[in-house]
Amino acid sequence: MKLLEARIQQDGKVRGTEVLKVDRFLNHQIDVKLLQEIGQEFQRLFGDCGVTKILTIEASGIGIACVTAQYFGVPVIFAKKNKTKNIAGDVYTSKVESFTHGQVYDIIVSKEFLHPEDRVLLIDDFLANGSALQGLIHLVRASGAELVGAGICIEKAFQPGGDLIRGMGVRVESLARVARMSEAGGVEFC
Amino acid sequence: MKLLEARIQQDGKVRGTEVLKVDRFLNHQIDVKLLQEIGQEFQRLFGDCGVTKILTIEASGIGIACVTAQYFGVPVIFAKKNKTKNIAGDVYTSKVESFTHGQVYDIIVSKEFLHPEDRVLLIDDFLANGSALQGLIHLVRASGAELVGAGICIEKAFQPGGDLIRGMGVRVESLARVARMSEAGGVEFC
Repeated sequence: MKLLEARIQQDGKVRGTEVLKVDRFLNHQIDVKLLQEIGQEFQRLFGDCGVTKILTIEASGIGIACVTAQYFGVPVIFAKKNKTKNIAGDVYTSKVESFTHGQVYDIIVSKEFLHPEDRVLLIDDFLANGSALQGLIHLVRASGAELVGAGICIEKAFQPGGDLIRGMGVRVESLARVARMSEAGGVEFC
Repeated sequence: MKLLEARIQQDGKVRGTEVLKVDRFLNHQIDVKLLQEIGQEFQRLFGDCGVTKILTIEASGIGIACVTAQYFGVPVIFAKKNKTKNIAGDVYTSKVESFTHGQVYDIIVSKEFLHPEDRVLLIDDFLANGSALQGLIHLVRASGAELVGAGICIEKAFQPGGDLIRGMGVRVESLARVARMSEAGGVEFC
């Protein structure tokens, strides 16, 4: 998606060779008009798949998922990172290792919201090592729902997540795929 | 807002006398069509205030803020609850005590995204004790930006947050105001 690549070139910031900050438009400040373009692109890619639910993970996936869901006419579910007293009862759970925070945490989705008859599209901002996406896939499979695929805004294609998830037989559509990056050389796309 | 009140009556779950679970449509599964109605209502209330930024707090405020921001044509900023290695540099920070989790945490917003010339609308799902909203107000005031007001989906009017925030001179518009609630009696609105 040329619009997203151009925005990454313009406003993204590379830290070292592995961290790409997109705080200006995607996961701290959010350009909602850009999200609308992203949502329409996901609808173009997955619109004929009979999606009934969009599943994402807090926090930065939520805005992308909600704007995207408007074009599908389906609800969003966001997996929660910590069990709070406001979620009781039966949940599907999975472990995720955070690339950003360097820690392992549980994600949960209430069993009330995922059913065998659902067709689920995963949405997230980044695909790097694939741990968050693996966790979401595990939740969907535990529920018996059909996994339609994953719509990712930015894939760091030099990290193993994309190959890993595609190797699991999951359709992954990434709107911008970073081949390599550096502070001096900037971002190069696949 | 009658539509939201009706949805709370239909799908909300009261736990004890203080916890109102709206996991079915607002903060675990999200009914995006309902968010569109909510966003249009906030636009009706604050549309003439010259809003330049919508500020919310992760996680459950993000979807509401992003859908609402479409009707204002402005970006969303979400305050983050933990400092990660992906946010470096100068930030505004404030302490928040979570009603749901029973703990104190820091919230931060990068100084890059709030400026004295901004006119900021706060958006959140709940107003209970007002701690999260106070934290956001502190961030806005620290930046020198103008605080236009706060758009809240559900105010638990039997808790002190609403009076507290209005007493600070902040315009608060709550779409559903709960007067009292109980597991046996359900939810009564103001």
